[in-house]
Amino acid sequence: MDDCIFCKIISGKIPCTKIYEDNEVLSFLDISPANKGHTLVIPKKHYETLNDIPEKEATKLMQTVQKIAKIIDKNLKPDGYNILMSNKPAAEQVINHAHIHVMPRYKTDNFKLSWTHKKYEEGEMEKVKEKLTKGL
Amino acid sequence: MDDCIFCKIISGKIPCTKIYEDNEVLSFLDISPANKGHTLVIPKKHYETLNDIPEKEATKLMQTVQKIAKIIDKNLKPDGYNILMSNKPAAEQVINHAHIHVMPRYKTDNFKLSWTHKKYEEGEMEKVKEKLTKGL
Repeated sequence: MDDCIFCKIISGKIPCTKIYEDNEVLSFLDISPANKGHTLVIPKKHYETLNDIPEKEATKLMQTVQKIAKIIDKNLKPDGYNILMSNKPAAEQVINHAHIHVMPRYKTDNFKLSWTHKKYEEGEMEKVKEKLTKGL
Repeated sequence: MDDCIFCKIISGKIPCTKIYEDNEVLSFLDISPANKGHTLVIPKKHYETLNDIPEKEATKLMQTVQKIAKIIDKNLKPDGYNILMSNKPAAEQVINHAHIHVMPRYKTDNFKLSWTHKKYEEGEMEKVKEKLTKGL
């Protein structure tokens, strides 16, 4: 897409610090990282969200995520790592080209990926299941 | 593992609200959800983190994540959804059996998966890349 910053990175119009690249996937350092080494993995074709990506390309993307997580673990030796994908603005997606964050984490880093835990009423989980699994 | 709550769910010793199951993967509702419909996807074998899971099983896990994200999107119609995996306590992993969160999100929900953005010094990204890609 013409106005997509990630498409411009893929085409080379905007530079990046490339970590891995093949025909379908590009991986590069996030310029504004949660911790140093924070890496993004993106499909080369422009898709907005995970559910827009055909299964074969999504599988390739996920295999690349694992590859990146492994080298982060091995070479940066963090205390842990997160995999995070935000789909749509309501889920805090900022750039509308599907991307997966691989973030090294440290015991001493100063953030939490946390949420308020909601509660189900008695019998409500079965109702949600019924709605959720329709057509599965 | 004997003392693992997710292994007990897999063996049926502890009940769950099952969303999907096959030979390798189990998916069920998180009992303490970020939003209703928040679903976990886990491998049936006990692995601690993503990097401990053999590629074939990891691929299957990720395909199931996409399957669950699709039915959440289609049947619950949230405003967005997150995919999150926390690996090791420093990354906020609470149960040491690898699990991936698929979380429906709404414009009106009251949390942010946010972090403080760190800064690279001039030339530092290339040094991190060199260290990170060793052996890739």
